[in-house]
Amino acid sequence: MTPARTKSFTTQLQVRFGDVDPAGIVYFPKIYDYLHEAFEDLWDIHVGRRYYHVLGEQQIGFPLVHSEVDFKHPMHFGERPIVKVTCFKLGRSSLGLRYKMEIDDVLCVEAEMTVVCVDLEDLKSREIPAEYRAKFQELLEPNA
Amino acid sequence: MTPARTKSFTTQLQVRFGDVDPAGIVYFPKIYDYLHEAFEDLWDIHVGRRYYHVLGEQQIGFPLVHSEVDFKHPMHFGERPIVKVTCFKLGRSSLGLRYKMEIDDVLCVEAEMTVVCVDLEDLKSREIPAEYRAKFQELLEPNA
Amino acid sequence: MTPARTKSFTTQLQVRFGDVDPAGIVYFPKIYDYLHEAFEDLWDIHVGRRYYHVLGEQQIGFPLVHSEVDFKHPMHFGERPIVKVTCFKLGRSSLGLRYKMEIDDVLCVEAEMTVVCVDLEDLKSREIPAEYRAKFQELLEPNA
Amino acid sequence: MTPARTKSFTTQLQVRFGDVDPAGIVYFPKIYDYLHEAFEDLWDIHVGRRYYHVLGEQQIGFPLVHSEVDFKHPMHFGERPIVKVTCFKLGRSSLGLRYKMEIDDVLCVEAEMTVVCVDLEDLKSREIPAEYRAKFQELLEPNA
Repeated sequence: MTPARTKSFTTQLQVRFGDVDPAGIVYFPKIYDYLHEAFEDLWDIHVGRRYYHVLGEQQIGFPLVHSEVDFKHPMHFGERPIVKVTCFKLGRSSLGLRYKMEIDDVLCVEAEMTVVCVDLEDLKSREIPAEYRAKFQELLEPNA
Repeated sequence: MTPARTKSFTTQLQVRFGDVDPAGIVYFPKIYDYLHEAFEDLWDIHVGRRYYHVLGEQQIGFPLVHSEVDFKHPMHFGERPIVKVTCFKLGRSSLGLRYKMEIDDVLCVEAEMTVVCVDLEDLKSREIPAEYRAKFQELLEPNA
Repeated sequence: MTPARTKSFTTQLQVRFGDVDPAGIVYFPKIYDYLHEAFEDLWDIHVGRRYYHVLGEQQIGFPLVHSEVDFKHPMHFGERPIVKVTCFKLGRSSLGLRYKMEIDDVLCVEAEMTVVCVDLEDLKSREIPAEYRAKFQELLEPNA
Repeated sequence: MTPARTKSFTTQLQVRFGDVDPAGIVYFPKIYDYLHEAFEDLWDIHVGRRYYHVLGEQQIGFPLVHSEVDFKHPMHFGERPIVKVTCFKLGRSSLGLRYKMEIDDVLCVEAEMTVVCVDLEDLKSREIPAEYRAKFQELLEPNA
């Protein structure tokens, strides 16, 4: 039997000149910008709805409540990391997304980011709308 | 006769690790962050009103309409530039602020930033309120 | 006779969530990040040599010495500005690049950025290498 | 008997205009910039040695290897969070620092950041120099 295969959303980043520190290595706070960029791409391309429409028209947001990040290998100016996004948790209102940043198959960063679906008006948590849930379901890891 | 002396608002910045490029020199877009920091300090300390109160409570803003910046000398990680702010133009609604960033009396950056006072509701220009005008008047250059 | 047509290098940006201020408008220092992004794209795509190779392998850089920027129209979260780059000055070592950022044919930002070719070792100005000069020549404005 | 009291290093930040998103809340990647700012302050003020001297003169660095962050309460434009830094782990070469960001005694962010002392030349881990170890020891939590 072949093992279950996890579908991922994959996108590509580029390490810009302004992202690296004097050692030529990506300045760590910039990594979190990359994670948000990948999150926006996930909405635009995989979910098929631009995140700013979700915010602006639906008045729904997904603020971060918890992050765990491992920095395994430095990334350098000019490199173009691949980011693979999968879903490690899909609750009623909470959503756990795993991001793996790779360069030439070397895992540089692995991040688990937990966001919660909220109404923007009062920032109270609410159920993830079914149309979005279905999209995140597609990225669910076998053991999730 | 002694020449007219220009009063300036003076504040100090710090070049942080994340501000410099691989050559150890401040990445130029960061300079504009410094200029906005000095602008916020100008409000907080010289005008005596926090800029976010101006925005949030008075619904008045000062968006940038024109900038001219000379980069004369590089700034490095760990340096603590002094910024001197004077006023080179004070119109009905427009305000021209000059920023000089110095390290050990070496002029590193000189910037002329022209902002316009607007109502935030419709972004239309409006007269600079008298209480603020008086504060900027104090910084007016002799030839302005 | 048809007037001379200026060839431009054109690239597209995207206004990210982290780029806008509480009014939903691009925070002005971020504009200079966009200008550097367009500059890096100009190298990668038009010149055909990645800017980080120029820096790292040739030990040549193009630091900014003067900028003039007009902010004509605000840009908002989710918009995707087009940037057109032309050359308004091409000296022995100095290079003047004009950037026009447009959204739906509305000119939002126009910038003139003057950089100087330097040896990275001593930061002294040097002649722009002929292979690069030819590429910038292609973007020269008729009146330049 | 009074319980053991943990000594902390305390510093204050300011939420700048450019740090907040359209909802007026600190954009989450910016939080990691704050953490690095507090880390630099820890060196400058508590350890008594500027971090850039450590990097530049001693050729020692402390890159991040793991982060865990809880986002408990949003922070807004104009607020001035207090950051308290303690040490939850002090190994041979690894150093675990806990950061608590508070506004009016409300805990907004809690972060555990694990860095490793390395030689900058080859990025290999090395023992934390004794003079620094003593300083981090002072911040050690009772249960660490």
